[in-house]
Amino acid sequence: MNQSSMARLYQALQSSKLDSTKPAAVSAPLLEQLIDALRVLPGVGQKTAQRMAYHLLEREREGGQRLAETLALAVERIGHCAQCRDFSETEVCPTCANGSRERSQLCVVESPADRLAIENATGFRGVYFVLQGRLSPLDGVGPRELGLEQLEQRLAQGEVQELIIATSATVEGEATAHYLAQLARARQVRPSRLAQGLPLGGELEYVDRGTLSHAFGTRSEFRD
Amino acid sequence: MNQSSMARLYQALQSSKLDSTKPAAVSAPLLEQLIDALRVLPGVGQKTAQRMAYHLLEREREGGQRLAETLALAVERIGHCAQCRDFSETEVCPTCANGSRERSQLCVVESPADRLAIENATGFRGVYFVLQGRLSPLDGVGPRELGLEQLEQRLAQGEVQELIIATSATVEGEATAHYLAQLARARQVRPSRLAQGLPLGGELEYVDRGTLSHAFGTRSEFRD
Repeated sequence: MNQSSMARLYQALQSSKLDSTKPAAVSAPLLEQLIDALRVLPGVGQKTAQRMAYHLLEREREGGQRLAETLALAVERIGHCAQCRDFSETEVCPTCANGSRERSQLCVVESPADRLAIENATGFRGVYFVLQGRLSPLDGVGPRELGLEQLEQRLAQGEVQELIIATSATVEGEATAHYLAQLARARQVRPSRLAQGLPLGGELEYVDRGTLSHAFGTRSEFRD
Repeated sequence: MNQSSMARLYQALQSSKLDSTKPAAVSAPLLEQLIDALRVLPGVGQKTAQRMAYHLLEREREGGQRLAETLALAVERIGHCAQCRDFSETEVCPTCANGSRERSQLCVVESPADRLAIENATGFRGVYFVLQGRLSPLDGVGPRELGLEQLEQRLAQGEVQELIIATSATVEGEATAHYLAQLARARQVRPSRLAQGLPLGGELEYVDRGTLSHAFGTRSEFRD
């Protein structure tokens, strides 16, 4: 349906161009180009892209202008921090450049979004290392792609005392965590990981079996 | 929660700037600006905007670049067709400029998206008029805002023989339809409207009462 209506649309555009009394445009109409360009956004298909394009043109031209400028600038200027591999406009990101952060605690996360979540939710005053992925040999993601050589060098410098491993609780995240722990121990750095158990505010009844079983097995003494 | 975490984020950004050994940046980080700018898109909140920004920077820099360029161009160049009020890069849109379209049939729609839907679904070879809204006195949308003076002039020229009213089946759409029908009759133009009844492929059981009652009341003779 989508395919065929697209085909029909192109056909209509084509024929309207040929029939036109005006000279034929060289490329597809700008509106079609915009709809097409919006589809690079995650979770945005043809229909949503169309709605976004119409919304921008009808009600948000100024915002659209600002988005275009900011996006062009961001794509051009945002690179990776030389120390933590997070996104950064500068050679070294503000967090790594910040002299008041504890350099003895290094928290390893999978993505910039994870880093931001920890930064916002906790009072952590150490520094980060962003893997930009997780070990996944089948997808060709090995230690090299995650910058683990760089991490090893950092651990070898002796400044880091605790490696806080905050990878996600998926199979690949766990495999990455084990690899990182080995790396840390080889350099006499203490590896630690985020606590696993019941989420705060969660009803026992609705917690998945794996989490419940794990939380039950790793129960701790009750302290007031 | 969102408010407080935003506040905390800004606080963190502020303090990291003050603590920084580097000279403080003049404006917010480009990444924050990008996330903020993405929120002009319809249905995109803080979380989605963040995901979009990370996606573009991680995997779609080229697509992001293209989106930025196309959007800037579209916002600058796409205006409204002088004849049908649809979006157009040119003074008169390709459909209106197309000499082979029937000028005696004029189809009135509420939005460019409606126009595109009719163009794609039907074999209509007439021309369109896009209201860019519908009559809604409470929101300050009157005949003037919908370009109805322009439509009247068009009807007065005598070229149009049928005014196909394709406004939506909402209360405001219906009110607009009645207004348009009066306009047409005053100029001896025949108004028509899209058929109302059961949607094709719809199960009788699940059709809403209003539609079912209307379809029952306006039943027509069975023809093979």
